[in-house]
Amino acid sequence: MDFAAVDVIATKRDGRALPTAQINWMIAAYTRGEVAEEQMSALLMAIFLVGMNYDEVAAWTAAMIASGIRMDLSTVGRPTVDKHSTGGVGDKISLPLAPLVAACGAAVPQLSGRGLGHTGGTLDKMESIHGWNPRLSPEQMQAQLSAIGAVICAASDDLAPADRKLYALRDVTATVESIPMISASIMSKKIAEGTGALVLDVKVGSGAFMRDATAAAKLARTMVTLGVAAGVRTSALLTDMSTPLGVAVGNAIEVAESVQVLAGGGPPDVIELTLALATEMVSLAGLDVDPAQVLASGKAMDTWRAMVAAQGGDPDAPLPVPKHTHQVLAASGGVVSRVDARAVGVAAWRLGAGRSRKEDPVQAAAGVLCLAKPGATVAAGSPLFELHTDTPERMDAALAELAGAVDIAPPGRKVSRRPIVMDTIRG
Amino acid sequence: MDFAAVDVIATKRDGRALPTAQINWMIAAYTRGEVAEEQMSALLMAIFLVGMNYDEVAAWTAAMIASGIRMDLSTVGRPTVDKHSTGGVGDKISLPLAPLVAACGAAVPQLSGRGLGHTGGTLDKMESIHGWNPRLSPEQMQAQLSAIGAVICAASDDLAPADRKLYALRDVTATVESIPMISASIMSKKIAEGTGALVLDVKVGSGAFMRDATAAAKLARTMVTLGVAAGVRTSALLTDMSTPLGVAVGNAIEVAESVQVLAGGGPPDVIELTLALATEMVSLAGLDVDPAQVLASGKAMDTWRAMVAAQGGDPDAPLPVPKHTHQVLAASGGVVSRVDARAVGVAAWRLGAGRSRKEDPVQAAAGVLCLAKPGATVAAGSPLFELHTDTPERMDAALAELAGAVDIAPPGRKVSRRPIVMDTIRG
Repeated sequence: MDFAAVDVIATKRDGRALPTAQINWMIAAYTRGEVAEEQMSALLMAIFLVGMNYDEVAAWTAAMIASGIRMDLSTVGRPTVDKHSTGGVGDKISLPLAPLVAACGAAVPQLSGRGLGHTGGTLDKMESIHGWNPRLSPEQMQAQLSAIGAVICAASDDLAPADRKLYALRDVTATVESIPMISASIMSKKIAEGTGALVLDVKVGSGAFMRDATAAAKLARTMVTLGVAAGVRTSALLTDMSTPLGVAVGNAIEVAESVQVLAGGGPPDVIELTLALATEMVSLAGLDVDPAQVLASGKAMDTWRAMVAAQGGDPDAPLPVPKHTHQVLAASGGVVSRVDARAVGVAAWRLGAGRSRKEDPVQAAAGVLCLAKPGATVAAGSPLFELHTDTPERMDAALAELAGAVDIAPPGRKVSRRPIVMDTIRG
Repeated sequence: MDFAAVDVIATKRDGRALPTAQINWMIAAYTRGEVAEEQMSALLMAIFLVGMNYDEVAAWTAAMIASGIRMDLSTVGRPTVDKHSTGGVGDKISLPLAPLVAACGAAVPQLSGRGLGHTGGTLDKMESIHGWNPRLSPEQMQAQLSAIGAVICAASDDLAPADRKLYALRDVTATVESIPMISASIMSKKIAEGTGALVLDVKVGSGAFMRDATAAAKLARTMVTLGVAAGVRTSALLTDMSTPLGVAVGNAIEVAESVQVLAGGGPPDVIELTLALATEMVSLAGLDVDPAQVLASGKAMDTWRAMVAAQGGDPDAPLPVPKHTHQVLAASGGVVSRVDARAVGVAAWRLGAGRSRKEDPVQAAAGVLCLAKPGATVAAGSPLFELHTDTPERMDAALAELAGAVDIAPPGRKVSRRPIVMDTIRG
C-alpha cells in the first residue's frame, strides 16, 4: 500500500494514531531512501510531542525489525538470555554479568554499542583490553556462544537497519528522549538479535535518561509488553542512577573494576546489581542455579578470560594508565550524602572517556574514580575524586562539572542509601 | 554568535521561547546550507505544535528579510500600497484591484505567486493572457510603477530567499498551516518588497486556509502588528470564503470576470470586495479619491490595458476556451442556501486549473462556473455548475468533489447572505 509522507506526518501532527499500514509504509520507504530525511524528522518531532499509543509502538517496532534480518540462535545449544541497560554512569555491569550468566549455563548474546554523551559504551570499555576485537560475523558469534556462552560484540549492520538510520537522525534533531521511540529502538534490535529472554535495566535518576521513576516505569512496561508479544521472555529492573555505579567511571578503570568483581571483590553496589540482574536472567533462562555461588566459585572469571581471548584480547595484558591525574579533596569533614551521577558522567566525558560525535575517538585511560560514595565518612582534605586523562588541558572543564556534585552532611549524620533495585516489572 | 542546531530545536521542543540570537543564527545558517533540512524541519514541526510568541515571530520575520535584499520604491513618484490575500476560491481580486488603485493615483507593486492545491495563483491566471510575461527585473518593475502605477509580477529570487527555501520545506513536511509561520512568510516578502502601505485580505471559511474567524483574526492582528513595527502602514480585512468569490473559478475564466468588473459589470460580490480593498488601500496611501467613481470612469480599465501591454500581453486577444464542458443540474427547485467554496476549489483543481506539485503545468481554460450562488432561486434541472477542462478523463473526479457541495432550501425560504467583509483590523 502506498501513502504520501506528508499525509502520514499530518496524521500524527493532528494528534491521531498512525495506522499500522502507514507505519509499515513510512519505515520501509524511509529505509529505501524514498521518504526524505526532512520528512522523517518532522514525523519524529510530531511523535515526540504528540506521543504514540501501544499499538503504534508495537507496529513501529515490528516495521524496524522487518527492515533487516532476524537472527536464529536456536542452534546454540543453551538457553539464550540477554541484558540491556538504558545507560548510566559507571555502568560496567555487562562486563561481569555476561560471563557470570554464561557460567550459570546460559548463552548471552550481548550486542553492544558505543557511548555518546555522558554515558559510556560497553564496546569502548572492552577496547581498553589489548587486542580485543568487537566485530564478529554471525557465524563467529554463534560458535562462541556455543563454546563459551558469552559474547560481547558490535551489532551487525543487518539488524534493524531502519533503527540505525533513525537513531542517527534523532541524534541531530533533538528527538532522542521519547519513550515510544526509545522502546521501539531498543526492542527492535533485541528481538531481531534472536535472544529467547531479555532483562532490561531501566535506569532512574540524575545520571539516566529518565530522571523520574514514573516515566521510567512506563518505558519499562512498554518494553516488557513488546518483548512478550514478540515471544521473548522479558523482565525489567528499575535501578537507581542518582549516583555513579561503583568507584570507576571511564573505560580501562571500569574494566579493572569488573575484573575485581569477577575475582570476588569490587564495590558492593556493582556486586549487588550484577547478582540481581544475573538472578533474573538465570530465572528467565529456566536454569536452577545460584549466580552468587557461581561467582564465588571462580567459574565466571574463567568464562571472562575465555570470552576475552576468543575475541583476540589478552586478559593478562596491563590496562592503559593515564598520563595525568588530579585529586579533588573534601573542603570539610562529615558524611557524604550525595554524589551526583550526571556531574561525574559529564566530567569523565570532558576528560576524554566519552565522545561528542560518533566519529570521535575515546581515551582508554580517561575517567573519574569516585573515592567517597554516599554514606562514607570523610575528613577535611581527604580525596573525593581522582581525575584521569591523557590531555591535561581538559582538567579544568571536568573540575567545573564536579563543582557542587558532592554534598557532605555534618559528622555522625546517618545517610540512608537508596536501594539499587527500585522495582521489578515482569511480563 | 554560534549555536548548535540541536540545542535550538530542543529549546522550542521543550516549550520555551527562542531567543532572537538563536533565530538569527538558525535562519542565516539554514540559508547558507549549514543547518540541514532535517534539522530545520524538526524545528518547524516543534514550532507548529508549540507555537511562537509575538517577539519570536517578529525576530523570525526580520531574519528572513535579512536573508535577501530590501527593495527601495521611494523613487517611484507615487505612494506605494500593496494587497495580499491569504488565498481563496475564485479570488481574482488582484486583477481588477491593482489597476483600479493605480488609476486612483497610487503605485501597486503586486508581487504574486502561483497556485498550489485548491486555491489558484494570480500568476497562473494572468498567464492565460496571450504573450503576458510574469518576470520583470527590479528596474523594469520600478519603471512600470512610475509610468502606469500597477505591476503584477513574480517576486525576485533575491527577496527573502530564506522564506522560499522554508516554504518548500514546509510544503513537504506538513508544517504549512501555522499562524506564526504564515505571518512571518507573508510579511517578510511584503516588507522586503519595499511597499509603503499594505492591506491584507485574510480569508475565513471552508475555502480558506483559516476555517474559523478567531484564528483568522489572530493571524490578521499578528501581521498588522509586524507591518506597522517595520514602518509599513498595514490594515487587514477579514473576508468571507465560505462560498466562491464571483462566478468563475479557474484561470482564463477569472481573467474574463475581472475584465467584466473593470468594464463596469461583473458579479456583485467581486465588485464589493474590490471596492472595499481599494478604499482601504487608497486611504492608507493618503489619497482622497473614491475608487467607485474611478471604476465607473473607465480609468481602471485603461490602466489594466496599459499594465497588460507593458508586460507583453495582448489585452484584446481571445482567452483560451476549454475542449470539454459539462453542466451539473439541480435535482430539485428551491433557494440555494450553500455553495461550498472548498469543494468548488478542489473540483477546479481536479479539472486542471491547479497543480499538486509546483513543477506541474496548469490548464488555462480549466475551471468551474458557479451558475447559482447562495440566495439564487433555481428550478429542478437548471444548471448549478459548468465544468471546463481540456482533459475529459478528469470530469469524474471533479463531479465527485461537487457531490454535496450545494444545499437547496424549499422555495420561498429567505437566505441571508454573510457579509463579504466581516471585520477590519487597523494598525
